[in-house]
Amino acid sequence: MYNGVNLDKLKEECGVVGIYHDSPEETARLVYYGLYALQHRGQESAGIAVNDGIKCNHYKGMGLVSEVFDDARLKEMKGHIGIGHVRYSTAGESYVGNAQPLVVRYRGGTIAMAHNGNLTNASKIRSRLEDDGLVFQTTIDSEVIVNLIARYSNEGVIAAIERTMGLIKGAYALTIMTEEELIGVRDPLGLRPLSLGKIGDNYALASESCAFDVMGATLIREVEPGEIIKINKNGIESTKYKNVGRRASCIFEYIYFARPDSILDGVSVYEARKNAGKLLALEHPVEADVVIAVPDSSIPSAVGYAEASGIPFGEGLIKNRYIGRTFIQPTQSMREIAVRLKLNPLKQNVEGKRVIMIDDSIVRGTTSKRLVKSLKNAGAKEVHVRVSSPPVAFSCYFGIDTPDKNQLIGGVKTVEQIRKIIEADSLGYISLEGLVKSTTLPKENLCLACFNGDYPIPVPNPEEKAFARYIGGE
Amino acid sequence: MYNGVNLDKLKEECGVVGIYHDSPEETARLVYYGLYALQHRGQESAGIAVNDGIKCNHYKGMGLVSEVFDDARLKEMKGHIGIGHVRYSTAGESYVGNAQPLVVRYRGGTIAMAHNGNLTNASKIRSRLEDDGLVFQTTIDSEVIVNLIARYSNEGVIAAIERTMGLIKGAYALTIMTEEELIGVRDPLGLRPLSLGKIGDNYALASESCAFDVMGATLIREVEPGEIIKINKNGIESTKYKNVGRRASCIFEYIYFARPDSILDGVSVYEARKNAGKLLALEHPVEADVVIAVPDSSIPSAVGYAEASGIPFGEGLIKNRYIGRTFIQPTQSMREIAVRLKLNPLKQNVEGKRVIMIDDSIVRGTTSKRLVKSLKNAGAKEVHVRVSSPPVAFSCYFGIDTPDKNQLIGGVKTVEQIRKIIEADSLGYISLEGLVKSTTLPKENLCLACFNGDYPIPVPNPEEKAFARYIGGE
Amino acid sequence: MYNGVNLDKLKEECGVVGIYHDSPEETARLVYYGLYALQHRGQESAGIAVNDGIKCNHYKGMGLVSEVFDDARLKEMKGHIGIGHVRYSTAGESYVGNAQPLVVRYRGGTIAMAHNGNLTNASKIRSRLEDDGLVFQTTIDSEVIVNLIARYSNEGVIAAIERTMGLIKGAYALTIMTEEELIGVRDPLGLRPLSLGKIGDNYALASESCAFDVMGATLIREVEPGEIIKINKNGIESTKYKNVGRRASCIFEYIYFARPDSILDGVSVYEARKNAGKLLALEHPVEADVVIAVPDSSIPSAVGYAEASGIPFGEGLIKNRYIGRTFIQPTQSMREIAVRLKLNPLKQNVEGKRVIMIDDSIVRGTTSKRLVKSLKNAGAKEVHVRVSSPPVAFSCYFGIDTPDKNQLIGGVKTVEQIRKIIEADSLGYISLEGLVKSTTLPKENLCLACFNGDYPIPVPNPEEKAFARYIGGE
Amino acid sequence: MYNGVNLDKLKEECGVVGIYHDSPEETARLVYYGLYALQHRGQESAGIAVNDGIKCNHYKGMGLVSEVFDDARLKEMKGHIGIGHVRYSTAGESYVGNAQPLVVRYRGGTIAMAHNGNLTNASKIRSRLEDDGLVFQTTIDSEVIVNLIARYSNEGVIAAIERTMGLIKGAYALTIMTEEELIGVRDPLGLRPLSLGKIGDNYALASESCAFDVMGATLIREVEPGEIIKINKNGIESTKYKNVGRRASCIFEYIYFARPDSILDGVSVYEARKNAGKLLALEHPVEADVVIAVPDSSIPSAVGYAEASGIPFGEGLIKNRYIGRTFIQPTQSMREIAVRLKLNPLKQNVEGKRVIMIDDSIVRGTTSKRLVKSLKNAGAKEVHVRVSSPPVAFSCYFGIDTPDKNQLIGGVKTVEQIRKIIEADSLGYISLEGLVKSTTLPKENLCLACFNGDYPIPVPNPEEKAFARYIGGE
Repeated sequence: MYNGVNLDKLKEECGVVGIYHDSPEETARLVYYGLYALQHRGQESAGIAVNDGIKCNHYKGMGLVSEVFDDARLKEMKGHIGIGHVRYSTAGESYVGNAQPLVVRYRGGTIAMAHNGNLTNASKIRSRLEDDGLVFQTTIDSEVIVNLIARYSNEGVIAAIERTMGLIKGAYALTIMTEEELIGVRDPLGLRPLSLGKIGDNYALASESCAFDVMGATLIREVEPGEIIKINKNGIESTKYKNVGRRASCIFEYIYFARPDSILDGVSVYEARKNAGKLLALEHPVEADVVIAVPDSSIPSAVGYAEASGIPFGEGLIKNRYIGRTFIQPTQSMREIAVRLKLNPLKQNVEGKRVIMIDDSIVRGTTSKRLVKSLKNAGAKEVHVRVSSPPVAFSCYFGIDTPDKNQLIGGVKTVEQIRKIIEADSLGYISLEGLVKSTTLPKENLCLACFNGDYPIPVPNPEEKAFARYIGGE
Repeated sequence: MYNGVNLDKLKEECGVVGIYHDSPEETARLVYYGLYALQHRGQESAGIAVNDGIKCNHYKGMGLVSEVFDDARLKEMKGHIGIGHVRYSTAGESYVGNAQPLVVRYRGGTIAMAHNGNLTNASKIRSRLEDDGLVFQTTIDSEVIVNLIARYSNEGVIAAIERTMGLIKGAYALTIMTEEELIGVRDPLGLRPLSLGKIGDNYALASESCAFDVMGATLIREVEPGEIIKINKNGIESTKYKNVGRRASCIFEYIYFARPDSILDGVSVYEARKNAGKLLALEHPVEADVVIAVPDSSIPSAVGYAEASGIPFGEGLIKNRYIGRTFIQPTQSMREIAVRLKLNPLKQNVEGKRVIMIDDSIVRGTTSKRLVKSLKNAGAKEVHVRVSSPPVAFSCYFGIDTPDKNQLIGGVKTVEQIRKIIEADSLGYISLEGLVKSTTLPKENLCLACFNGDYPIPVPNPEEKAFARYIGGE
Repeated sequence: MYNGVNLDKLKEECGVVGIYHDSPEETARLVYYGLYALQHRGQESAGIAVNDGIKCNHYKGMGLVSEVFDDARLKEMKGHIGIGHVRYSTAGESYVGNAQPLVVRYRGGTIAMAHNGNLTNASKIRSRLEDDGLVFQTTIDSEVIVNLIARYSNEGVIAAIERTMGLIKGAYALTIMTEEELIGVRDPLGLRPLSLGKIGDNYALASESCAFDVMGATLIREVEPGEIIKINKNGIESTKYKNVGRRASCIFEYIYFARPDSILDGVSVYEARKNAGKLLALEHPVEADVVIAVPDSSIPSAVGYAEASGIPFGEGLIKNRYIGRTFIQPTQSMREIAVRLKLNPLKQNVEGKRVIMIDDSIVRGTTSKRLVKSLKNAGAKEVHVRVSSPPVAFSCYFGIDTPDKNQLIGGVKTVEQIRKIIEADSLGYISLEGLVKSTTLPKENLCLACFNGDYPIPVPNPEEKAFARYIGGE
Repeated sequence: MYNGVNLDKLKEECGVVGIYHDSPEETARLVYYGLYALQHRGQESAGIAVNDGIKCNHYKGMGLVSEVFDDARLKEMKGHIGIGHVRYSTAGESYVGNAQPLVVRYRGGTIAMAHNGNLTNASKIRSRLEDDGLVFQTTIDSEVIVNLIARYSNEGVIAAIERTMGLIKGAYALTIMTEEELIGVRDPLGLRPLSLGKIGDNYALASESCAFDVMGATLIREVEPGEIIKINKNGIESTKYKNVGRRASCIFEYIYFARPDSILDGVSVYEARKNAGKLLALEHPVEADVVIAVPDSSIPSAVGYAEASGIPFGEGLIKNRYIGRTFIQPTQSMREIAVRLKLNPLKQNVEGKRVIMIDDSIVRGTTSKRLVKSLKNAGAKEVHVRVSSPPVAFSCYFGIDTPDKNQLIGGVKTVEQIRKIIEADSLGYISLEGLVKSTTLPKENLCLACFNGDYPIPVPNPEEKAFARYIGGE
């Protein structure tokens, strides 16, 4: 999340939006609102590109959507098609040159693309293209994709996308814009989400359906894994990329990334989280006086746990709503302040009580430890930690920023060891089965690799990210 | 609150902090953390002043504490005493010249002051001082106070403060700093809150106790109405300003302003809110399927209502956590977006359901109307609005930014009229008695003027704020 | 001057502008242009205040006039009277709180004031006012003046200014604005310049006449030493403060501060500088091949020297026109770069030549030394330094930022010692008589104290600036 | 030039720097100083890239070198090779994506390139590359060049550059950096300048030799037209691209673009300008009282004219040194102000006099007209305009921003017509022969196309710049 006090969470890498609209003045504005709703998916940079059939106008900058764009800027951006992007990125590669949408000129005109996800064979393809004399100006996989599309564009953009999909492996939800059409693409496994919506007679695309709500659109359906959706003046047309095997929707969207008011693959994220809380209560019951959440993301699970257990839900940690981007580190003697500043225990709900603290995930364990301590200092008699996802034990290669495997506490420690480290009175993780059940989706439709290492496609060697080392800009 | 989408709430005008500390390197930093915790009390400007016994160093700027201060700045500010201020202000008078602390040189050295509150006779005193040839450089009441203290400073600062308190009327919680002492002052009615805390052997002052939590301090007690607390190297000394009549703590601190993890006048704000929710359930029961809150401030009352009514609590409105300071207004055709952007209905908890929506207060009614509509659009079968405070019907003259009386919907419409306007299926406000009861404080200790017009001291004529019209700077 | 590479010059402390104009839309704009033309007198902060008869609107900020104001800002500032200020200040006291115009509310309404100069008895008066219970919020002398005016304002502003002039000692050129009038005041010695101009039927005031040129005004005359000029709807009215003795115009305005296209006290600054060059040639002739100037301020003297000596004028040092405010210091091994970056020798005019380098003044001698070295490295056979002012040997107390006396090379070294230090082949300063003659003014009309220590009024003890140590803000 | 008040001058498009240095800490800093000295060649954006043999680190931004870089930034940029770029650009295409150096990854590693100049067949090549499936992300020609180099890089970078030079036509001075070498390239006609310098044992490249002066380097020689200079740990190696015909150094570098303290193709820019002034005096003598320059660029010619004519040189127009980037336009009634703000007549040198005003060039004639009027208003009896270059009558296609031909007053009006338009008493342009003679270079070594339309290579059709219309970013 966008704040100075780093909570112990995985980081989503992007959100995308697209719209084909009949009133050119509103296009950029609608993309802007869509991105606003998807801001939780990336706070590092934001960008919008619009096309009026002749000229592609784009702007991108570092910061929140509301910081990058102002009214004057939006007013200059007219067009019947627009796409947008918000980005989170790992430190070091964070510079405006890597912001999206990527806008390029190719033989057919201009193509703009916004990409959420990560390829597993990007470096291999990049090398091959470099062998053919191509150059790359950014460190983002999207540049590889757009080069392939351009290369195969002789037979048209859709055909080129199909050919490209035959080559690239990994996770990608794309919104693509040419002078005439808006195109949505989702990888054959459906690793990253992408939805189709409608505003009046116009169509929109977005990573999550919550964007449609603020755009005034209605969710029609998911873009299917491997589907290419083309929207132009003739309406909408779907092409299905052939060799689709299993689906593999990212489980972490349900656990933490997506907004609770989104519906992904037909599943309410809120419901999934609440279900997980209920199942967690069944799997790891404990006698206690109050169920509290680590706000905000764990509230649905906590509400679910409370309902299933009969133990009342209460607010136990008050979140400071004004945490800024920069944060002045406390001196050693005030170390505990950093967590309190962000999450302050609510004594009245904690003092003298046996507390069940629901968290949606534990990555490194550092924050959990501080919160338990903080609650105990506030007078909690017992602190029972319940986690609505299993131990994160494997790195993600599909667009999520995970620490090195040896920093994943779930990968290197037993549950009992973790309990001791975080000084909880008891610790219970939901089972993988329970988690899957909470989503109501078949297990084979989900990517659970971060928990069980079962990657839906072969994962690359670590050198994959080496390119960034060569071109580090800003 | 700090955001582009204006929610229909009253606005607090300030938060103050003070500390007397033995390690000069940590003083400014502790003030900074204290202000960080009080950021909800004012997001327009922030300032810190420190004194090392010889020199008073201060800095103030427009924006959030985290924006105004950086590490380098804080490191330059060394001293054993420090005070700080965050400010919200009404439009038009918002410029850095009005930011606090106010630092002046007077015959005894320098005096720095941070003020929360509003005087009712400031213009009268100002006129009298002007008649004596004084000039005023700001439009804040604090400049009047500091001039009086300077004028009477012959017999010492404390004596001067006492004489000043004999002249000024209204609401004030002050932290004052000289070369040698930190002084905390609370007006004789105790209209605005001020607490005393301790960090090791050091003392701290803050508008709310939640600041102590992040400063690593413990709450000792409230500063009493009319009390002057002087803290210096000899420890702490209390003087009681004589003619104290009744107390009149601001009821709205309990309803909305204060953070739920604060304790004011010995009362847990969280508990008070939860109690109000419970009493509201008793006073205005209704058959329904789910109790939802207008987040974040109404959650405790909603939890209380749910507990008392037995109807399950659920999240019904998802708050966007990334609302920036600037916000691009939607065009007429997208008007509904503005509210959705900030608070999006959670369909799963709302669709086909009879919903009880708990709000802590209704000021103009505009947001309530949009939220009801939004919930209905999301499929709510019925929307029953329950408000954990009575109708706001009178303007505040003690430091709260209230709209003109004729814009207060509670002042000009009946409950039934309001219900119709906001298109709710039913509407229930807690009774004043219920609200008072929820705080556990005696009624005569509270200022309830915004509900019943019973001002604890005579209120000024509207010309009072006229000065601002003359010196409008930026 | 505004740049990172510090040239060895004295620093002017301010420029002021005022206008009484019949079209309220143009007032602020004209003040802006006037300040633009006076930007050389101060680059630290800029401010404008306008009054429409009812409300005084002001804005000030750190930076150049063009950075502080934009079109939108100016458009908001409407009024028939306007004053403006640009400020340079010594490090440490540089913060927006000290920027001008100072705008205060007093018994008669509002008064805004822009001040160029320095009082010699400000601290004494301030103490006395503090004894009466007054407070001070800034460290600028102007606050003392405005307090005195307010205090004596019973009998009207003009009378109050007269009484104030009876108390304050030192240098001041003021533009003062009330709801009804624009007032210009010049101290009885005329230490700091102030001129009166006319635009159509409207009147303007400015530190230098070059401001009138860009405002479209014509210079009428100087404001006389000790004169108070009141401009209102009835026209112009002059009051002469009584006890005027000698005049004492600052000689350094003619040497360096003023723009060459200004006329001060009836004297063309350009002519004075050129005359000084001519006289310098007569006083310190030397055989050489080329006369060069240290640009830009020494060009007129160099042209004069060339004319009188018959030795051709040429450009010998090329100035970088893009020196920014910040400048990254070279490492030790590149120390010489700093000067070269700013002033690069022009080999073609220097190599193998005997060069006469004209400088308008030498303060510390550091830059002179570097320039001589730089010219020699570029191949100059001989470098003869000629200075169109005598050695600066005494500190200024009237508004000019001079280093401590012991840092003034002219105060602690003989000419021959200085020559050796700066490694020049010869060094000649113009005589004081020569300099005076160059201005065509009688010697008794000039303040020559920085050269001969003959202060026109007693100068204060050094503690005078001590106040700044107490209130250091930012 | 960098200012709000647009003077009537042609605009240079870029400056480049390169260095191969043995102390990695100083590399970026030296590039920075070099760019500082070349700031007059472009004020829109600045960028630096360094390579430490493993990683290429780069940063670029909008604004002056001193605004884009600070100390912290430079300290992070370590490497033994560095290149830099400053850019001016025509409105509309001005965005950070077009800033340089361009840094790309290709099969051989990374390549960074800074380019001054313009290709005449860029769009043709770009189309051909697009046909092969390549994409372009910027609108700068440099991207075409770098793609060609990458494409031919099989046989090594130098061979690839040679092949590239065989394809591209137009003007280019390049500094190129790989992990191991710094390469300087100048187009076969030598249209844009590039020099080689030495710092101790290290080599440097720069558009103009004035950069070497501040870098502490000495000019060795020009990079020859068509020459490729490779600098690596083994020293320096020159390759000469084969088919070189005539040379065609840009004449405007001598007239206006280059700094007077630079030496280009062995010629002192200052001398050339002074010579032109002398010859102008012979070609267009006139009786007058004073010779003045339009500062700063015309001073050398004015000094030359004065010397040759015996009429004294004087300053007649005083330049405001604080013209900021933004400038608030005067209202219609103050139109004349805009020019005065920048260049104010010096009455003393003008009033009642016959004035010869030397200008280095007239492009549209608008400023000339205003200056003549301004001088007359200041009392000039006669104003004789003398121009040290012939009428600009043809557009440039080699890196200079010229207005459309029909806006070039020299292309559509006779000298007498121009004289009438600018209201001068007489007008004389130097002859082309005179101008050529002033440079001491053979006519066939110069590009004089803007005067005589004799382009050294065929020029493109106007559609060439059409690409920018498609990808307009920011």
